[in-house]
Amino acid sequence: MRPISSRLSMILGCLLLAVSLPLVAAEKVYRLKLAETWPPNYPILGDTTKNLAAIVEKMSNGRLIIRIDSKNKHKAPLGIFDMVKAGQYDIGHSASYYWKGKDPNALFFTTMPFGMTTPEQYGWFYYGGGLELMEKVYARHGMLSFPGGNTGNQMGGWFRKEIKSLDDLQGLKMRIPGFAGEVFARLGASPTNIPAGELYTSLERNTIDALEWVGPALDLRMGFHKIAPYYYTGWHEPAAELHFLINKKSWDKLPSDLQEILRVAMRSVAYDMYAQSYHENSESWSKIRTEFPDIKVKSFTGEVLDAMQKANMELLAERAAKDPLAKEIIDSQATYLEKARAWTSISDKAYLNSLDD
Amino acid sequence: MRPISSRLSMILGCLLLAVSLPLVAAEKVYRLKLAETWPPNYPILGDTTKNLAAIVEKMSNGRLIIRIDSKNKHKAPLGIFDMVKAGQYDIGHSASYYWKGKDPNALFFTTMPFGMTTPEQYGWFYYGGGLELMEKVYARHGMLSFPGGNTGNQMGGWFRKEIKSLDDLQGLKMRIPGFAGEVFARLGASPTNIPAGELYTSLERNTIDALEWVGPALDLRMGFHKIAPYYYTGWHEPAAELHFLINKKSWDKLPSDLQEILRVAMRSVAYDMYAQSYHENSESWSKIRTEFPDIKVKSFTGEVLDAMQKANMELLAERAAKDPLAKEIIDSQATYLEKARAWTSISDKAYLNSLDD
Repeated sequence: MRPISSRLSMILGCLLLAVSLPLVAAEKVYRLKLAETWPPNYPILGDTTKNLAAIVEKMSNGRLIIRIDSKNKHKAPLGIFDMVKAGQYDIGHSASYYWKGKDPNALFFTTMPFGMTTPEQYGWFYYGGGLELMEKVYARHGMLSFPGGNTGNQMGGWFRKEIKSLDDLQGLKMRIPGFAGEVFARLGASPTNIPAGELYTSLERNTIDALEWVGPALDLRMGFHKIAPYYYTGWHEPAAELHFLINKKSWDKLPSDLQEILRVAMRSVAYDMYAQSYHENSESWSKIRTEFPDIKVKSFTGEVLDAMQKANMELLAERAAKDPLAKEIIDSQATYLEKARAWTSISDKAYLNSLDD
Repeated sequence: MRPISSRLSMILGCLLLAVSLPLVAAEKVYRLKLAETWPPNYPILGDTTKNLAAIVEKMSNGRLIIRIDSKNKHKAPLGIFDMVKAGQYDIGHSASYYWKGKDPNALFFTTMPFGMTTPEQYGWFYYGGGLELMEKVYARHGMLSFPGGNTGNQMGGWFRKEIKSLDDLQGLKMRIPGFAGEVFARLGASPTNIPAGELYTSLERNTIDALEWVGPALDLRMGFHKIAPYYYTGWHEPAAELHFLINKKSWDKLPSDLQEILRVAMRSVAYDMYAQSYHENSESWSKIRTEFPDIKVKSFTGEVLDAMQKANMELLAERAAKDPLAKEIIDSQATYLEKARAWTSISDKAYLNSLDD
């Protein structure tokens, strides 16, 4: 009977081995490198990538690890597109409109002047064909792109003097980059871009007359409210959505469960960033108006807004005329905005207007 | 040599077995039963539970399976609280304010008359202490509760006659359940609750004079716009958030990676429901106003709204006086709302008001 009992014990040992091995044997660890445009520990925007890495690691039980490199590490805050495209990084966290020099149609997936609010734009991205159009643009570059977190409505900026009419915009030196800067230029202003670290001094020394940054949550620490008494409400970035860029080959290497974990995690932390932005803006605006009660919140006059809208429409028409995909995206956004805004008008807008502030 | 080669082949076989087994052996499948308040395939609300089950299964590679029972199966749409508490179901998808008879403080976690809008409320839930307060309420019942999807701002309802003054509310028979019904009752109206299937006929036959349901996306199919020409804007449910209820023991049985998968999935599909609601409301409102251009959108007059706000404050004060936890929640919401609304006023509200519709 010995041989049999010996075989039995070997079979039992073998089964024990099989039961104890799997967790070690099955769970290959995947490591992805993420480059973000922001400095280390940047509020809200940097929290979003940290949240992503944390929940992905927990959900995958340690099988998917994301290492985050901030601007200080990779030294190329506006090189994310190239680095992810080349596979130097697997993931990027940045803003799509930074890449309009790489692909003019990247412009449309962050926010547009006089465009959709955040809930309207999430409707467009996820239920109105926006995500598919964004995929179409980035597929040409071997990348995937997903919404990456919303700042909410951005303020129109800090002005040292009140803007009462179009005349006040003539020659106005303002830090306002991108498409909104082009709109301002058509109205006779002189838009410039200036690095973040030099903004306060430039405004203080009248090198510029005005600037836009983000909103109370990120403006407060910059101190602009101490030297510019007019805080204009927004028109140019009603729903700035960051994005995650992913190298297609890096994505394809992941097993499907980890792809889904990454996809859902990106979607969830992006929405979270919107809630966090709302929260931090509320808190910071409360501080600013308490400590600096003389800050005057202004909206541009009808004359100025009409001229801006006209310039904006002209610029969009020029882009649409040049490129069929640009036209497809612009038309999709315009059609969506019309329906969504009609709903906003009888829901949130009517509600807010029916109450005293 | 035979015995040795036989042993060798057994060892080799054993190793092969060990390598091929792990996915099968390690991955215990967890099955959770979910009961939802809604009928099968209910639009938007029902999509949310289906989305949850689908992404949880994919992210867990089939290790976490959620079976959904709709109203037709469990026959107890308003028994979700009890069934999840008793462990008959592991998860429920419903609305917290349905349970105010079980625990008066469950009222506060769906939406409140004259309360926060959806982005304001998400700020409160996730960054302003709301989730912790909800946990405090449900821990007493051995359950966890998480936000479960937002309908967006709900409309004030369909009225057959215009409400021009408080006098028009006297004796008005209206289907409006819950806390909002209590507010209406204080103003002299007669709020009632009527099952969904009887609403259209009740309105048509003047058994009731008015009713509130949800918003265009869910109102359209009910056909109210064919028999009631006045569509009032909302005041009573500015941000109705559904919730997921989870039996604490069921939750504790899950390994931590599956808990995290479930937590993130619930959070993500809840946000998704907000985007989907926005989308469907936009589409349905577009249909209604195209096909029925005579529908008149109205907001209640200042006199009526002031009286409603006064009644609302009185009702809240009564609840706060009776229960310290109620007071804690009411104070938390009021403090948060004040700051968040100040931000909304200079951001989305100012933006929307600066543009023509």
